[in-house]
Amino acid sequence: MSEPRPSVRQRLRRALLGAPIPNSRAHHERLSPFLGLPVFSSDALSSVAYATEAIMLILIYLSTSALHLQIWISLAIVALIAFVSMSYRQTIHAYPSGGGSYIVASENLGAGPGLVAAAALLIDYILTVAVSVAAGVAAILSAFPTIRQHVPDATVTLSILCIAIVAFANLRGLKESGTLFAIPTYGFVLAMAAVIVAGAWALGHTPVIPFHVESDLIGKEANAMRWFIVLRAFSAGCAALTGIEAVSNGVQAFKAPESKNAAKTLTIMSCLLAFLFLGLGYVALHLPEHYAHFSIHESNSPKYLTLTAQVAAFAFGQNSVGFYTLLIFVALILILAANTAFADFPRLASLIARDGYLPRYLARLGDKLVFHNGIVVLAIAAAALVVVFNGQLDSLLPLYAVGVFTAFTLSQVGMVVHWHKERRPGWLRSAVINGIGATLCFVVTVIIGFTKFLEGAWIVVVLIPMIYVTFIAINRRYASITRQLAVSEPPPDVTGHIALLLVPRVHRGVLSALQYARQMKGEIRAVHVPINEKGIFEVQRQWAIYAPDVALEVLPAPYRSLIQPLTDFVDDLRAKNPNMLITVIVAEAVSTKWYQRLLAENVAQQLKVAMARRPGVIVANPRYFLS
Amino acid sequence: MSEPRPSVRQRLRRALLGAPIPNSRAHHERLSPFLGLPVFSSDALSSVAYATEAIMLILIYLSTSALHLQIWISLAIVALIAFVSMSYRQTIHAYPSGGGSYIVASENLGAGPGLVAAAALLIDYILTVAVSVAAGVAAILSAFPTIRQHVPDATVTLSILCIAIVAFANLRGLKESGTLFAIPTYGFVLAMAAVIVAGAWALGHTPVIPFHVESDLIGKEANAMRWFIVLRAFSAGCAALTGIEAVSNGVQAFKAPESKNAAKTLTIMSCLLAFLFLGLGYVALHLPEHYAHFSIHESNSPKYLTLTAQVAAFAFGQNSVGFYTLLIFVALILILAANTAFADFPRLASLIARDGYLPRYLARLGDKLVFHNGIVVLAIAAAALVVVFNGQLDSLLPLYAVGVFTAFTLSQVGMVVHWHKERRPGWLRSAVINGIGATLCFVVTVIIGFTKFLEGAWIVVVLIPMIYVTFIAINRRYASITRQLAVSEPPPDVTGHIALLLVPRVHRGVLSALQYARQMKGEIRAVHVPINEKGIFEVQRQWAIYAPDVALEVLPAPYRSLIQPLTDFVDDLRAKNPNMLITVIVAEAVSTKWYQRLLAENVAQQLKVAMARRPGVIVANPRYFLS
Repeated sequence: MSEPRPSVRQRLRRALLGAPIPNSRAHHERLSPFLGLPVFSSDALSSVAYATEAIMLILIYLSTSALHLQIWISLAIVALIAFVSMSYRQTIHAYPSGGGSYIVASENLGAGPGLVAAAALLIDYILTVAVSVAAGVAAILSAFPTIRQHVPDATVTLSILCIAIVAFANLRGLKESGTLFAIPTYGFVLAMAAVIVAGAWALGHTPVIPFHVESDLIGKEANAMRWFIVLRAFSAGCAALTGIEAVSNGVQAFKAPESKNAAKTLTIMSCLLAFLFLGLGYVALHLPEHYAHFSIHESNSPKYLTLTAQVAAFAFGQNSVGFYTLLIFVALILILAANTAFADFPRLASLIARDGYLPRYLARLGDKLVFHNGIVVLAIAAAALVVVFNGQLDSLLPLYAVGVFTAFTLSQVGMVVHWHKERRPGWLRSAVINGIGATLCFVVTVIIGFTKFLEGAWIVVVLIPMIYVTFIAINRRYASITRQLAVSEPPPDVTGHIALLLVPRVHRGVLSALQYARQMKGEIRAVHVPINEKGIFEVQRQWAIYAPDVALEVLPAPYRSLIQPLTDFVDDLRAKNPNMLITVIVAEAVSTKWYQRLLAENVAQQLKVAMARRPGVIVANPRYFLS
Repeated sequence: MSEPRPSVRQRLRRALLGAPIPNSRAHHERLSPFLGLPVFSSDALSSVAYATEAIMLILIYLSTSALHLQIWISLAIVALIAFVSMSYRQTIHAYPSGGGSYIVASENLGAGPGLVAAAALLIDYILTVAVSVAAGVAAILSAFPTIRQHVPDATVTLSILCIAIVAFANLRGLKESGTLFAIPTYGFVLAMAAVIVAGAWALGHTPVIPFHVESDLIGKEANAMRWFIVLRAFSAGCAALTGIEAVSNGVQAFKAPESKNAAKTLTIMSCLLAFLFLGLGYVALHLPEHYAHFSIHESNSPKYLTLTAQVAAFAFGQNSVGFYTLLIFVALILILAANTAFADFPRLASLIARDGYLPRYLARLGDKLVFHNGIVVLAIAAAALVVVFNGQLDSLLPLYAVGVFTAFTLSQVGMVVHWHKERRPGWLRSAVINGIGATLCFVVTVIIGFTKFLEGAWIVVVLIPMIYVTFIAINRRYASITRQLAVSEPPPDVTGHIALLLVPRVHRGVLSALQYARQMKGEIRAVHVPINEKGIFEVQRQWAIYAPDVALEVLPAPYRSLIQPLTDFVDDLRAKNPNMLITVIVAEAVSTKWYQRLLAENVAQQLKVAMARRPGVIVANPRYFLS
């Protein structure tokens, strides 16, 4: 028996997408905190690249003088980072097998809240890709502004190109080596630290321009307005927290003691995040004015520099080696952040599918078809977002944090319930920590939802219930199928079987198919549908030689049709033989070359479609192989 | 046993494409010459609408005074019409069952010349669609020039729209009623006759502007040049003959005596064609100069009028009722001409396929899938031509007539051989007539190929051999398949059968599939591939209750994959049981609603692909129906 040879399609796939990868994407070597940090923190750390700019872009609306509020908002966000990471340290210890928001929320709060968290997370993975790629492209365009002259609509074009490259790398089965993550992440951290130190030093040697702290809005209305804008700026800055929960999903990837190492990694990551965020914010705030030219609509202009690029230009000098190095690392870590979403999205979908809220087959992450579908869906959704929002970060960000904080909140509330259920010694302390985390996250969710509603948060507020309803509908459908398939009511009795063999001509393939028909119990009926009247006699003559024991029936086919006479014949058989099963056997020629395959038509497939609504009729096609 | 209900897809198709049509497109009522004329002559008669303009557009290159040569060229073409239709009258009598060029050439000259004729005809059907539609759109735009202001790139856009409408009507199964053909055809003939009469009358009341018959090209070179251009003009006018052979293809559609009625129809058609062509040419030639503004590049200008429109404007007055009536009938008959190609193209392909030179399944014209494919291919090819040539008639026409006259020539030569073979009394006279026809057509083919080579005829000259080679390659492949499938060497013996039943869970559908497995001889192996470790025990427990006689094997599936463990298991089975056939039985859920179907995955199809290269493995999927 010959070994199966790869088909052309398989060979093409292999050439494009690489040799088959081991189906499990689990990390084979366990990670130390040093290697674990880059694997899990690219999403969180990379948000430093755009969070500060997001805050200042909003404050500038109020007045130039309002910019100094940035540092207070940044401090509030750092406090939030501290509380949230304390909360997640507890999750890490409670769920050493991995405690994503979906699992924690559904285990402790029930399916409903779990599904809300799941919906929020699915949306967020899409936004992680869109936002990270857009920010990465902004960094690239800041470093190499001339690209805009050569590439039409450079932001959108490059973003879509990046998404395509990352998706392709994931389809091909990116090898998640430690180095792949370590170089961009540590490179980014070091370069940012250098910018902050050099920037702070340069500030000491620059005449400080005092802020004109004047209130240009007066009265009660103005006060409310000011608060609103400050909260908006705070909401925008909360993008810095996205990705902070990643470590808690992957505790098992760490070396023993897993929880301890994971918790250590989370703490290191949070401290780095806080330091980079505050440091960059401090230098950015005190930049000499000519660097600090913000305007929303400027981000497509050829002279646009991201805030990070402005700080780097101030610290190292524009077009210096340091300037380019930083921006390249910024772009790399952002693309890495997008990459992690490509691993997480199908993984989460598979968990939801396993619980019956998404098509069940999505649970089979090991089947490439399923895994690839997830990647393609994510890439298309992210690309669509980039196109709709024209690749503008400030338009995409309002959508981002709502979902993240919704999931945070549900996860933390779940943890409170978890501690309350277990009531181990010291549970109250843990519950209080998670309770504070939950409260803060809830407040932030409300603030973001409120201040960013019209700008885009409404989309997420509408989408989460829609996805939730879809989950429930899918689950109900599965429940209904289970009821319909209950074995309490056995299937109707089968009284016999008819093998219906199609004989277009008499050749080896058809004789093989006859052998197959002989493997079945019951009657064999051989039929010939004449397309060419002249051929009938020859077919009958040969059939009588090679299969004298089986009668060959010639069906009437007045209209040079194959399918219609067969369906008529099958309907007649079914009517005369109720409760019998009928197998329609069609020999199929398989050619090795694709262009040879154009000559063969898939009659079996056409018959399958034609028979689709006829219960008890099965189409089977034994294949014969041509050279 | 329930009647099969139409699926959503079937219902959607029915809504869009109409109720199933009788598969045969044969005309049920036989035609009199009065009804036969419109059915078969739209292609031939409609060419009057552009042939004269094509001649004059070329003569104007030479000089305005050279225009008077038009009437002599037109007379030559009318003579050609007379000879060709005399030749075809003979074909009608010799092939009362239908004598298309492909049949006549292959029966008398052999497969080679037959296939050349076939290739030429296939190309010509595509060109008939492209040319007729482009000319029809030119008529519409002459009548309603303001369309150009509202529709961007009006010529191409409207042409593609027309092709889509005609293709759609054919997909839907246009009812080929006599009226459908009679109204545009007789309307066109009457309107054209009226234009010619009114035009001639108006000419009598218009001061004749004498032609300045002066030779603006002198010398030997100029003389050669002049001849070349006159021959080019003649070639262009030969487009008037396209479609003249149509009657000879459809003799069987006529009332008895079929051949006599068909021949009568051909004669009437040729006389009408000659009268309209000469009449229009005469009036067009003597138009007062301000009407006769020809220029090649003008045909996209907003003031462009086709020559027919200019004549109509002169005869009836521009924007008169007569003017619009004529142009609408011109457009209608041209679209009708395109429509006939949509019926003929798949019909010819089916004849070629029956002889084994195109994929065999194309012969099954009665299967809608096959018939529809022909229509779609023709529509796409014609639309592509329109786009490539920007909808310009004068660019498309040089491609047109080469193929037509190639087929004419081969068909007439075939007739000469036919008469010579039969040698009935009076055969010599018949052979001489066809011989003259063949010679004339051959000379015209050479003239067209020579004078129009660089302008586009080369495309056809290159395409015909390419299609010919494809025909031969397909035929060789079929011969090779036949050899490989020769029954002299019987297929290897089959020693047994294993039914491999997939058990994802224990439900009615799977129990039905088990019943199916029991209809097969040999062993039954039931296997469960666990996607969720927790579910294994429950499946085993239930299986033991409902199928205690069949052991359930649980396959190792470490990577949450379904396909890989199964293919491994099957490969193992094949190795241990050589020469056994294996049927993989997968129960498939069928939902009634399309959105419910999204939840079900076609595991059977995926398995079929996975097993595609494994001889002796057949995938069968009994279906269970959900409400």
